[in-house]
Amino acid sequence: MEISFDCIPCLLKQAVSASRMATNDKNIQEKIIFESLDILSKYNDYCCSPDLARDIHSAVKKHTKVEDPYNEIKQRDIKSAKSVYPALKEFLDQKNNELYWALKISATGNIIDSAISNFIDIKGCALAEAEKDFGVCDIKDFEEKIKNAKTILILGDNSGETVFDKVLIENLAPKNVVYAVRGEPILNDATMSEAIQSGLDECATIISSGCDSPGTILDRCNSEFVELFYNADVVISKGQGNFESLSSCDREVYFLLKAKCGMVAELLEVNVNDYVFKMHTA
Amino acid sequence: MEISFDCIPCLLKQAVSASRMATNDKNIQEKIIFESLDILSKYNDYCCSPDLARDIHSAVKKHTKVEDPYNEIKQRDIKSAKSVYPALKEFLDQKNNELYWALKISATGNIIDSAISNFIDIKGCALAEAEKDFGVCDIKDFEEKIKNAKTILILGDNSGETVFDKVLIENLAPKNVVYAVRGEPILNDATMSEAIQSGLDECATIISSGCDSPGTILDRCNSEFVELFYNADVVISKGQGNFESLSSCDREVYFLLKAKCGMVAELLEVNVNDYVFKMHTA
Repeated sequence: MEISFDCIPCLLKQAVSASRMATNDKNIQEKIIFESLDILSKYNDYCCSPDLARDIHSAVKKHTKVEDPYNEIKQRDIKSAKSVYPALKEFLDQKNNELYWALKISATGNIIDSAISNFIDIKGCALAEAEKDFGVCDIKDFEEKIKNAKTILILGDNSGETVFDKVLIENLAPKNVVYAVRGEPILNDATMSEAIQSGLDECATIISSGCDSPGTILDRCNSEFVELFYNADVVISKGQGNFESLSSCDREVYFLLKAKCGMVAELLEVNVNDYVFKMHTA
Repeated sequence: MEISFDCIPCLLKQAVSASRMATNDKNIQEKIIFESLDILSKYNDYCCSPDLARDIHSAVKKHTKVEDPYNEIKQRDIKSAKSVYPALKEFLDQKNNELYWALKISATGNIIDSAISNFIDIKGCALAEAEKDFGVCDIKDFEEKIKNAKTILILGDNSGETVFDKVLIENLAPKNVVYAVRGEPILNDATMSEAIQSGLDECATIISSGCDSPGTILDRCNSEFVELFYNADVVISKGQGNFESLSSCDREVYFLLKAKCGMVAELLEVNVNDYVFKMHTA
């Protein structure tokens, strides 16, 4: 997905916020802002918004020497999500364990995005959000596809959302699910460590995509991941960052997310805040 | 008020938004964004956020050759505000024309701020907002002060808000009220033209502050205004822009606004979204 002008102030806001998470030193925060302004002025050199975000968060890490500024937030979100897990299982049970609602729970997990809001009450709104229907849901195609699928690859997104994804993966059992996480800490995205903390090792094979951006930029992924990406029978891509980096990719992908900003909503032909499960064809 | 790091992405967002109001040409929009990034990287050279905003909106005007990008929005907001005017008068009548509620109506007008939200339903929410109490209200001091005041100076803010201010000025009658507007079009702020369209010439003397920023930067105001500013018995300053530029000024000012962002709220010691009527002493 092309970088929209709207991405630029949004990423700068992220830089301000991340710099505060990593340090209280205003001089260092200012250095990060100056470097971010410089990076943003070269936005045309980047392939997509997650690519830009990578360099901005690298600047945060470089200036603060904090490798994982979002660690505290990730821990908090996983803890909150785990506390909602039994209620999500009960919700799905009441919906007769239908695949539609398992997908919807996973999409609902996408509200746990500290990059967008630090103050969301996960417990309070998860069930209310889960009850809302998808704006677009290509479930018919998907049901056909998974019938004979041997390997389903899920591209993970935020920490905490991982726990909601566990509900979906348990619903897909006994299918072989591979869950891909980021190669290193970036934003509040899940890495191997957060995926294991979320209990995903109990129901899926966790692999690292090798990617160091808050998305899946194939040129920045490791070769094992890229091979699996092209060979998996079904690929489910979670969240906006993965969508922004794979929206024009050359294989079939099911995008599962909440459309949080106008640009993503426009491209997906839905309204802002709609939940989406949409098939992309190569 | 010092420029906060949070002002920087917020002003960049304003640049994106204003550039779209002024042109559909993406190349010109991009030039504005590049120039804005450059201006923002020199934020330390500016005295306050409205000072920075001035240069950013100058870039919009320079690149698009549109002198008043917000003209359409200003017209729309004045029209909407005028349609609410009879209901505001009735509301005040039901409140026995108390000064507290006249001030509150004027503060409520501060929600008409297209810079922050383009899609506010003025009609729908004006009365509901007017009913809310102030978070802080230094009305006791104010009532004493205006008893013997000969001249009350009001520093205007946005177009449309002007109509709400008319209700306050009519309540202050027969006091002599001077209403100051910006020296030239900047953001959605009222200039002489919008003040007259709002009917303020019927109840006040309208003057130009001469200021070309969305605030009152005394160094950029004309000498007549500055003289009046220091000699008026009472000064009421409307909105965040005037507050940001006068928060440390060397005369007594009553700040009347809605605290729309965290930085302003913090300095005023209120919560975000609180309505404020606060005396500043020199």
